[in-house]
Amino acid sequence: MSGNRRQGRKLWRDITLFDGLETLPEPMAVIVEGERIAHISTMAGVDEAAAAGCEEMGSGGVMTPGLVDCHTHLVFGGSRADEFEKRLEGVSYEEIARTGGGILSTVNATRAASESELFDAARPRLEALMRDGVTTVEIKSGYGLTVEDELKMLRVARRLGAALPVRVITTLLGAHALPPEFKDDSNGYIDLVCHEMIPAAAEQGLADAVDVFCERIAFSVAQCERVFEAAKAHGLPIKAHAEQLSNLGGSAMAARHGALSADHIEYLDEAGVAAMREAGSVAVLLPGAFHTLRETQLPPIEALRAAGVPMAVATDANPGSSPIFNPTLMLNFACTLFRLTPREALAGMTAHGARALGLSNEGQRLGRIEAGAPADLCLWNADTPAALAYAVQPGRLRQRVVNGVVTHG
Amino acid sequence: MSGNRRQGRKLWRDITLFDGLETLPEPMAVIVEGERIAHISTMAGVDEAAAAGCEEMGSGGVMTPGLVDCHTHLVFGGSRADEFEKRLEGVSYEEIARTGGGILSTVNATRAASESELFDAARPRLEALMRDGVTTVEIKSGYGLTVEDELKMLRVARRLGAALPVRVITTLLGAHALPPEFKDDSNGYIDLVCHEMIPAAAEQGLADAVDVFCERIAFSVAQCERVFEAAKAHGLPIKAHAEQLSNLGGSAMAARHGALSADHIEYLDEAGVAAMREAGSVAVLLPGAFHTLRETQLPPIEALRAAGVPMAVATDANPGSSPIFNPTLMLNFACTLFRLTPREALAGMTAHGARALGLSNEGQRLGRIEAGAPADLCLWNADTPAALAYAVQPGRLRQRVVNGVVTHG
Ligand SMILES: [Zn+2]
Ligand SMILES: [Zn+2]
Repeated sequence: MSGNRRQGRKLWRDITLFDGLETLPEPMAVIVEGERIAHISTMAGVDEAAAAGCEEMGSGGVMTPGLVDCHTHLVFGGSRADEFEKRLEGVSYEEIARTGGGILSTVNATRAASESELFDAARPRLEALMRDGVTTVEIKSGYGLTVEDELKMLRVARRLGAALPVRVITTLLGAHALPPEFKDDSNGYIDLVCHEMIPAAAEQGLADAVDVFCERIAFSVAQCERVFEAAKAHGLPIKAHAEQLSNLGGSAMAARHGALSADHIEYLDEAGVAAMREAGSVAVLLPGAFHTLRETQLPPIEALRAAGVPMAVATDANPGSSPIFNPTLMLNFACTLFRLTPREALAGMTAHGARALGLSNEGQRLGRIEAGAPADLCLWNADTPAALAYAVQPGRLRQRVVNGVVTHG
Repeated sequence: MSGNRRQGRKLWRDITLFDGLETLPEPMAVIVEGERIAHISTMAGVDEAAAAGCEEMGSGGVMTPGLVDCHTHLVFGGSRADEFEKRLEGVSYEEIARTGGGILSTVNATRAASESELFDAARPRLEALMRDGVTTVEIKSGYGLTVEDELKMLRVARRLGAALPVRVITTLLGAHALPPEFKDDSNGYIDLVCHEMIPAAAEQGLADAVDVFCERIAFSVAQCERVFEAAKAHGLPIKAHAEQLSNLGGSAMAARHGALSADHIEYLDEAGVAAMREAGSVAVLLPGAFHTLRETQLPPIEALRAAGVPMAVATDANPGSSPIFNPTLMLNFACTLFRLTPREALAGMTAHGARALGLSNEGQRLGRIEAGAPADLCLWNADTPAALAYAVQPGRLRQRVVNGVVTHG
């Protein structure tokens, strides 16, 4: 070991730096020491004493924080490719439902799968996200819908985080759909979620947050509120799938309970925007589902922007409404479909994505490139940060750094 | 060398085979000998004498013909990421045009670039297509708009084909846009295309076909017809960008001249469909441009289907209206946006893509998996061919074979 080389210090020179909120105006240098970002400076201002003995990691390219995909359902059994094909071949929804299609086909396949089958199926999906720059990913349960199957999904998510160089945040989404056993007794199912699932997940440390699907086809605002109260009683942060298909007021209710985020929100109204601003909740935009469902109702981007509600962008990777395992494509979709600026889209998958997971506070500060923050970084073959949203071109990731360790390139 | 191993024979077992037109009902075995597909059989029917001594290439997975991207503009100078960003930040089209944006910014950058600069810029774009399964790609000129700069672009396209394991088909698209030197003299520019560009490209063997942009913002039907006559006089096949923004009748005129394809065709009418059917022209669908331009006019899929006009699907990879270097995403877009079936979308990037390039005749038969056809193959990590259109998941390509040689995996 060279006497002059301080161990574990890495230096990047002459990079175009998007720090999680904006692009810095000059070429920059970044020094990582161990697991943390140690120094950031302009090229002119590089502290050569600090640089001495660093491992030179190369120069040029665009550096962003490691991408944060704050909303995924990537643990699931089975495939819905056949259903996708049938629908395009003209088979009716009714017929597909009668032959076991839709979310319940995923529930059945997930229940039938062992933990290692679920792990093996999810792994390449997660690796696709990682190859495209993801360093932090949220993974929800929600296809088990029994205490044991929901916990199984969360254990798989935890195992993925332990096996691969990526930070995994888990979310219990027991209130995702009504399981067939509780047909005509949705309150009975919500009892199970509140009195058994949440306590078990909390006790076993398997869930970092609790989510609900607040919609006419899922659970009512009152039912979701009961879930939130149970979550809070167990010290778990909350969030909601809300205002995706209609405006029930779920986002505003979630905000009143201090939700980290309200997600989808195509039908969010001004009152909902105001409630989210008040609570500091993040608006999580999911343009992959918008695309797949051929939705035409746009989320209220202008109102969110005017109110200063932070907007995150995520894949919603799932087998039904967003079978998309390609985070940089979501940057393009956020711009092209939702008219975010490239800067907003990138902040949505870095700083604001981290905030939607409760990871942006002092001492964590994921999704940012700043001295003292964890060294989760991506180096891209691109001329400008905007190019990452502009061109859809897999394979541009040059280096991926998680917690100071280069895991790609 | 093993006495028993016949040189250059490769065997895949137990694959789900999409042959370019349809998915075979049983697991199949494929044997490649040298540059050609030698045998295809069901697993039950494998000729073990033929299989003896083959190199075993593995079993399982989905095999398709190598993808054919029959419409790209991937040689160009400069970047339009800044323009994309400015537009989303609210800068007007007029302001962007005044500051040199739009296609003319690409023309200026392309003219200013050397052949090797253009080569170096295009190479990673082409490699992105290849990593996603492309084995045959068409590359158009059209950003030079002088004889020398158009030939320069075509030479770069030829060099890409020589340097990389991919079949490159070149197209002279001199009639892409009116260059500033010919402002108010579009007929004068068409004279240049007909009397100088086409003869020079033909004489130097640089163009495999001639294309035009038939649109109010580009060239009239009559001007395009003059270009086609010049092309035919030099023995070059023709094709057209037509009916993208309005219905001028360019596709029907092109069909009357025996065009290989009419491309975009969102505004194609019944008469145009009938003319294409009559001529055997291929309808090339470009959902990337539809997405990027937020077009709402859908191409007449039902009418094309009813008439039996073959539909191809391509990326239209270009710096303005489709900065998308991701062919399998186009399978998803063709299904989700245009309601093609997965089978139609896959045929559009294999058999019908090859037909749009004039490569599907006896003796060439690209885009098909059948005995005697060139061994251009992709093996995918997928359960069904439909999954390639259903899930957007880069990195599923397991093996890519061009002319019998494994070039990936
Ligand atoms: Zn979701
Ligand atoms: Zn084009």
